[in-house]
Amino acid sequence: MIHENVDNAKKSQGCPSQGGGDMAQKQQEQQAMIKDSLSKIKHKIFVLSGKGGVGKSSVSANLAASLSKKGYKTGLMDVDVHGPSIAHMLGLTELLDISPDQQRLMPKQVNENLKVVSVQALMQDKDQAIIWRGPAKTGMIQQFVGNVEWGELDFLIIDAPPGTGDEPLTVVQNIPEALGVIVTTPQEVALSDIRKSISFCKTVKLKTLGIVENMAAFKCPHCSESIDLFKNGGGEKTAKAQGLDFLGSLPFDTRVVTSGDAGVPVMSEDNETEFTKAFETLVDNILKQL
Amino acid sequence: MIHENVDNAKKSQGCPSQGGGDMAQKQQEQQAMIKDSLSKIKHKIFVLSGKGGVGKSSVSANLAASLSKKGYKTGLMDVDVHGPSIAHMLGLTELLDISPDQQRLMPKQVNENLKVVSVQALMQDKDQAIIWRGPAKTGMIQQFVGNVEWGELDFLIIDAPPGTGDEPLTVVQNIPEALGVIVTTPQEVALSDIRKSISFCKTVKLKTLGIVENMAAFKCPHCSESIDLFKNGGGEKTAKAQGLDFLGSLPFDTRVVTSGDAGVPVMSEDNETEFTKAFETLVDNILKQL
Repeated sequence: MIHENVDNAKKSQGCPSQGGGDMAQKQQEQQAMIKDSLSKIKHKIFVLSGKGGVGKSSVSANLAASLSKKGYKTGLMDVDVHGPSIAHMLGLTELLDISPDQQRLMPKQVNENLKVVSVQALMQDKDQAIIWRGPAKTGMIQQFVGNVEWGELDFLIIDAPPGTGDEPLTVVQNIPEALGVIVTTPQEVALSDIRKSISFCKTVKLKTLGIVENMAAFKCPHCSESIDLFKNGGGEKTAKAQGLDFLGSLPFDTRVVTSGDAGVPVMSEDNETEFTKAFETLVDNILKQL
Repeated sequence: MIHENVDNAKKSQGCPSQGGGDMAQKQQEQQAMIKDSLSKIKHKIFVLSGKGGVGKSSVSANLAASLSKKGYKTGLMDVDVHGPSIAHMLGLTELLDISPDQQRLMPKQVNENLKVVSVQALMQDKDQAIIWRGPAKTGMIQQFVGNVEWGELDFLIIDAPPGTGDEPLTVVQNIPEALGVIVTTPQEVALSDIRKSISFCKTVKLKTLGIVENMAAFKCPHCSESIDLFKNGGGEKTAKAQGLDFLGSLPFDTRVVTSGDAGVPVMSEDNETEFTKAFETLVDNILKQL
């Protein structure tokens, strides 16, 4: 069913209404399955950004790792069809299983409390590009909510591609109770895109928990002097100017890059560093608001 | 006409064929205008990347600045609807003009040899999000080729959003003779997305000039020691493994960040730095292949 539905979405070329009554009924069933899945999940957190490469996937992976380590039942859903990073960052190399009744996709159990689904974990050839236009992506995201065996969860973390197009819009339309966490880096070119994300949240009425500034202060590993790679403080200033909470500033840490490549998020380990301390503050600031 | 066509694309919701004969004729006219525009442009270079934030816009802006400084008539087209950075990086703050006959959009003349068009330069409120699904973006990109007064050009540099979705696909379908330049950073999480870009290029038969590695070696401004922010060498290795040319490695330089924020690409200035020397090598490697 999973693959059949995605194929339908691909064939429909953006005109799902052309399918007639049968298609309409299928859509109703899909909506019912989405509602059922969501009713078992307490909090849905949607990590978004106007600009790519600000560390959105890294924040999502570490947020999920941190919450699951605290004992919360957590799901992590990667809806970035074209550049899915989550599978790699969590060391998922195998394909996802299908449930015994062939109706649902089984998320990958990373640890006792953490389940993950990524489009990457559906592909035999990991290097193959998924060349889909919008409607196919919409179908995929709906499947990831409605046709995945998430079960009872405290948190579902949703990692979407950058921008304000099909994927974020589909997430908001299907999970209207989601709470947004906006990730940025400190430089103006990123912040101007982030203001668009804030405008997007307001337009689609997505409640926002606040802004995270990533890749801020960096300490030279040789001389320990501080370096502003992408400037500094822009995230907090933008939060204030836009009347949003500032959730915290995360330092740039090359270990976050290497741990992402190695498939083990730093927040799932026990080492205390400036990054992990800053990340704990971020998680506390999110939990306080729920 | 410009705004009317974009509105049509928005209304059509991915079903342009539903518009009947009138719509079909408009599409034929549009295709003729695209052909006419492209016939006056010698080389079309499509800068693409599987991952956001690898510096694709920064490479596009500096490539356009460098070529125009060498005397080539150059156009720079930003088709990233959701996160357009090019206008900011080139200091464009005003709205674009419409031609006297109201039929075409006038690109912004940055210097004698450089013209720029960005969706950002069409918006009264720069912070407003453009919440468009795929078909509207397709319409926009076709307008940016066919309805812009590019005139005679040696180069058109096209900066697309990351991924392998609607925007890159529309560029390739409308400009099949474009030559791809793939930008990456050195870490594996970026490279796994870049392998998808390469797969995309092969699938859609886009000829590729090669791979650029960005944000590689970084020198601490305090102690001058070298730091691998995002690892090192991954771009060259991937190029070799995939049988593609390696066009060059660009060091991370905080001045590229600040100059992008200030609206003046470093390659349009006269200061010689390690970054500008590496960028010159990249431009030479591109020119050699044409």
